[in-house]
Amino acid sequence: MREALPPGSTIGILGGGQLGRMLAVAASRLGLKAHIYSDEPGCPAFDVCAARAVAGYDDEEALLRFAGAVDVVTCEFENVPAKALETAGREASVYPPARAFAVAQDRLEEKEFLRRLGIPVAPFAAVGSRDELDIALKGIGFPALLKTRRFGYDGKGQVVIRSEKDADAALAAIGNVPAILEGMLLFEREISIIAVRGRDGAMRYYDPSENVHQDGILAVSKVPAPSGAACTYAAREIAAKIAGALDYVGVLCVELFQQGDGEPSLVVNEIAPRVHNSGHWTLDACAVSQFENHIRAIAGWPLGDPARHSDAVMTNLIGAEANRWPEFAAAPDTCLHLYGKAEARPGRKMGHLTRLHPKT
Amino acid sequence: MREALPPGSTIGILGGGQLGRMLAVAASRLGLKAHIYSDEPGCPAFDVCAARAVAGYDDEEALLRFAGAVDVVTCEFENVPAKALETAGREASVYPPARAFAVAQDRLEEKEFLRRLGIPVAPFAAVGSRDELDIALKGIGFPALLKTRRFGYDGKGQVVIRSEKDADAALAAIGNVPAILEGMLLFEREISIIAVRGRDGAMRYYDPSENVHQDGILAVSKVPAPSGAACTYAAREIAAKIAGALDYVGVLCVELFQQGDGEPSLVVNEIAPRVHNSGHWTLDACAVSQFENHIRAIAGWPLGDPARHSDAVMTNLIGAEANRWPEFAAAPDTCLHLYGKAEARPGRKMGHLTRLHPKT
Repeated sequence: MREALPPGSTIGILGGGQLGRMLAVAASRLGLKAHIYSDEPGCPAFDVCAARAVAGYDDEEALLRFAGAVDVVTCEFENVPAKALETAGREASVYPPARAFAVAQDRLEEKEFLRRLGIPVAPFAAVGSRDELDIALKGIGFPALLKTRRFGYDGKGQVVIRSEKDADAALAAIGNVPAILEGMLLFEREISIIAVRGRDGAMRYYDPSENVHQDGILAVSKVPAPSGAACTYAAREIAAKIAGALDYVGVLCVELFQQGDGEPSLVVNEIAPRVHNSGHWTLDACAVSQFENHIRAIAGWPLGDPARHSDAVMTNLIGAEANRWPEFAAAPDTCLHLYGKAEARPGRKMGHLTRLHPKT
Repeated sequence: MREALPPGSTIGILGGGQLGRMLAVAASRLGLKAHIYSDEPGCPAFDVCAARAVAGYDDEEALLRFAGAVDVVTCEFENVPAKALETAGREASVYPPARAFAVAQDRLEEKEFLRRLGIPVAPFAAVGSRDELDIALKGIGFPALLKTRRFGYDGKGQVVIRSEKDADAALAAIGNVPAILEGMLLFEREISIIAVRGRDGAMRYYDPSENVHQDGILAVSKVPAPSGAACTYAAREIAAKIAGALDYVGVLCVELFQQGDGEPSLVVNEIAPRVHNSGHWTLDACAVSQFENHIRAIAGWPLGDPARHSDAVMTNLIGAEANRWPEFAAAPDTCLHLYGKAEARPGRKMGHLTRLHPKT
């Protein structure tokens, strides 16, 4: 293993959204500098970094210059082009590994990867044509979810098929791109686990959160999830298997469906090779947050204690909800986070609240 | 009262040390930008801000340009020249008020201000000459502390006088500048209280910490202090009286000696018109830190809940101690903070640790 990057080193971050912003702040806590690369001049992370690069993710020269100016490169979003990672990798170490992005960027590859590891997933089939959709629907039944293989997030790029009549419209709705059909599972709740793996293979796990989505966007994450200890251990085992298979370095989020309320029966919904919205509560309820642990992992530092000192409920502030900040700022036991985005467009994540409660 | 500064506004901070760094990060949490003004090009706060100005504190043009570019001005150190505050004040609101700096910058004015408010202080006398020192020593007795009136911090600019023989050497040691002689008090412990006052006069108080100094520099702050509830209320009353008399806005620290272990008997040692080292534990043990509450106060926001979710022990990392960061990073329940200073000079504050414990 290479030596840890000493304080004063520079973390290069591809992407300048709120996740990059929180990563940059976490780096500063450790005496590390952040250099942000983004294609948006006014992006949130630019307000809290030591250096900035504004260029496209296909600008090879800018990427090489950026990677040459930093000590390690990471990403704050999963849809970074493979070519950008490869280019940056010529000048600096890039974590997490490119393979993790390849898997997470393609829902079909992701499902196949998980199935090969023996990890339960919903029934699925590749859909490249109307004929293949018919065959897939026969195998999987109704209702089913048709999803684009690539560039899906926050409920985008997916549509429910309730009967054969919906099939044409569904293909049109997702733009007739390569897709995957998934069976819709009955489940008790959605949970996620945030895990972190160091360059030496060490792993740490945050407590799983229970997540509630609205309109396909995460609305609320609660810890502890009511899923129980057996479920926590099962979730950790799944995260460890995935991280090990990818030789992963950094924070990884695994979203799961919990079926039944007794013995844990977990099905992986998707994986995110990055810090994750469902782990924002770790900023305020843990000694070391997911953001700091990601920085520690990629910098080769000892991983931090993920223990939780408080129970927490994290609520996203979407679009105009953020305009209620004076009310949220005055609430007791409440940590208010605003991301510095100028325009409160509908569906846009503008900030979040974490309410802390004594640990039960 | 003027309206609160909305998210997206810019906080101007005079000074770029670790306090400015932590203020800038706190501003970012609320969706506010930080513009840092410092006379040192490589200062710690420059790594985490949206805009920077490098110029002297006597550069009127630079100060006007800076104040014109921000929405409010504050300071991260107390020895900012009165003229700089006055200049900035022509272009922007400046908080805390200039009067608070005038009082805190001169130990004689500070003691006289406190005495006028009926707040207990050590016996003291102005010393402008060798003759005045003799007279003061007769009134105050031995041992006594001779301190420069201005520019003292971290135990600098003060010397103990144990007998008449020390008098000449003491005056020479502090450079024969205008001074104050103070009686040395017996006390049980040193505590401090961090208070915050909003633009509307609202006040909030953090729990007092017990502080241990080494070589005149703060070494450790512990909460809760073992001083008890009556002492906490007495400390709050003192802080409220001081803040009210100064029409204060922002975070104020009051350092106190607690005499006796029974009924609280508090004597004010000094006041600091800024966020304070003895309040660093609030970053990790409270929903809203002293840094965020200072930003909220000067921005006209509702003050945040200062309640403490954990007990905490904050330890400063001075000079080469910070080189032990790999060991501190690996410790459980420990929040490690490094300030991004390149050179670990002896006596220099390089970072701090906060160890969290379940609340007793």
